[in-house]
Amino acid sequence: VGLPLVERLLAGDLRALARAITLVESASSSRPAILKEAYPATGRAAVVGITGPPGAGKSSLVDALARAYRRRGERIGIIAVDPSSAFSGGAILGDRIRMQQHHGDPGVYIRSMANRGHAGGLARATPDAVDLIDAAGFSIILVETVGVGQDEVEVVDGAETVVVVLVPGMGDDIQSLKAGIMEIAHLFVINKCDRGGADRVETDIQQLLSLGSWEGRWRPRILRTTATTGEGVEGVVGAIAEHQEKTRGATGAGHRRRDLSRARFLGLLQERLLLEVRRRVGAARLEAAIDEIASRRIDPYTAAAAVAAEAGLGDGP
Amino acid sequence: VGLPLVERLLAGDLRALARAITLVESASSSRPAILKEAYPATGRAAVVGITGPPGAGKSSLVDALARAYRRRGERIGIIAVDPSSAFSGGAILGDRIRMQQHHGDPGVYIRSMANRGHAGGLARATPDAVDLIDAAGFSIILVETVGVGQDEVEVVDGAETVVVVLVPGMGDDIQSLKAGIMEIAHLFVINKCDRGGADRVETDIQQLLSLGSWEGRWRPRILRTTATTGEGVEGVVGAIAEHQEKTRGATGAGHRRRDLSRARFLGLLQERLLLEVRRRVGAARLEAAIDEIASRRIDPYTAAAAVAAEAGLGDGP
Repeated sequence: VGLPLVERLLAGDLRALARAITLVESASSSRPAILKEAYPATGRAAVVGITGPPGAGKSSLVDALARAYRRRGERIGIIAVDPSSAFSGGAILGDRIRMQQHHGDPGVYIRSMANRGHAGGLARATPDAVDLIDAAGFSIILVETVGVGQDEVEVVDGAETVVVVLVPGMGDDIQSLKAGIMEIAHLFVINKCDRGGADRVETDIQQLLSLGSWEGRWRPRILRTTATTGEGVEGVVGAIAEHQEKTRGATGAGHRRRDLSRARFLGLLQERLLLEVRRRVGAARLEAAIDEIASRRIDPYTAAAAVAAEAGLGDGP
Repeated sequence: VGLPLVERLLAGDLRALARAITLVESASSSRPAILKEAYPATGRAAVVGITGPPGAGKSSLVDALARAYRRRGERIGIIAVDPSSAFSGGAILGDRIRMQQHHGDPGVYIRSMANRGHAGGLARATPDAVDLIDAAGFSIILVETVGVGQDEVEVVDGAETVVVVLVPGMGDDIQSLKAGIMEIAHLFVINKCDRGGADRVETDIQQLLSLGSWEGRWRPRILRTTATTGEGVEGVVGAIAEHQEKTRGATGAGHRRRDLSRARFLGLLQERLLLEVRRRVGAARLEAAIDEIASRRIDPYTAAAAVAAEAGLGDGP
């Protein structure tokens, strides 16, 4: 693995792309080399996260967006993120049904990513997969979450533009949903507007937004769609383009790309530092510290300071 | 700050407790010293996380549980976690209303914790606050989430016993909620059972559970309540006690306490290592790396390896 695989990927070979994502997702030892080679070809795709409560019609909206982008001749990648591990099946099945719909269209690449066991794994692997799809020449990448778990909010927060999909009739639920999800939105899409009741949801969102301070920041837009008929979908495409333009600009919302780079870099650096400390003090030393903390013989702050000092980092407790 | 404050806290002084939590929550420099002194007095309280979708009646259940524990003469701490920062107000208000209800009862301590800006801050600060309430002699600590954001799942996952509150009439939503939330539950409480329709929700949960493998693990229990009338609440108290007993035992679910200690220790260690690397290479070096990554001149893996090597950790890229 390594060079030839990435060369084929950069030439747009979808089998090479799939293989590279699998290697990166499984945290194979070839991961750094693959990413290093692909990285200079990244940064061109617009990366859009799509999330929202169950039943809001996220998948229908993603499908409608995919059709809209295809009409414009854009190549589109879709990553469906499902962090459920003990309980699985749903997402993968939906993925296969979708695959058939776009079967034979090399302009649509669909990939579902499930949790491989370790916490935060998805949040780490998804940006890598995004980079590879980007490097393979897809101009739009939609990252769609299946549920509302911790990993998913983290994953979608790693996208440049975050779309939160809501539906009429949520009533007071909007107020409660705000935590976490409402905060990361750049666009609110009220879907299933054929049902009626969109005004009420829009008023609720506006009310929430009025509590925030948007001076010098992107003020989230509110849009309406009926994804199943395609109504309003072009408006979403336009709003995504508008936010992308701001995101890539030099001021205000333009800082987002840098913030995303910061989070990713610091996460990888911390992962690496921990591995090095484990190598230096030995895994058994770490386990002993955990035992002492669990049995209340030492507090976690003192234990962390002691281990850091033993690894030659810091002045000790 | 330091010793006298913690001594008063250990003696059960609630003003000292409040002050200590504020210091710890704001990541004051006295945080390690406070935690170090309080830590030997911790590990006695049962720590119970309460989460669930908006509208499930989490607050009512928490209030009903508080009354049930007070009848048994137990001292109860309640932490209401609200990660919303740009949008705020709701949780704090609810908190004040609640405070009044238990006003003058030194056996109930209520604290709400909101996001202080940096991601993951709440997940870090909540276990510290739990430790301090524990050290102040409260035997039950309920950690209640306000919404369903990323931080909140993380926070509740740090509790020993996790209660997920659901309601009849959720229909297919249970299927979608599974991601993240369903996985961390030890107890499912179907609340608002006076509405009818609880059988359907219970069947849905059972079906989900049947997909999991529970060999040698705690199989989540399903209970029914109507928190507003108190119906079924004693059953929840009993199930929490049963799970706590298993959690503190030596086998199976007993590993949970150790797992929690592990996550907390490794998180603190990584935080410390990053600070030390920043001290060694300089903050400007980290910012330069982030710039290079954002402009695609270097990939994040290579950049992390380079910075680690410059800090004297690892062999470089």
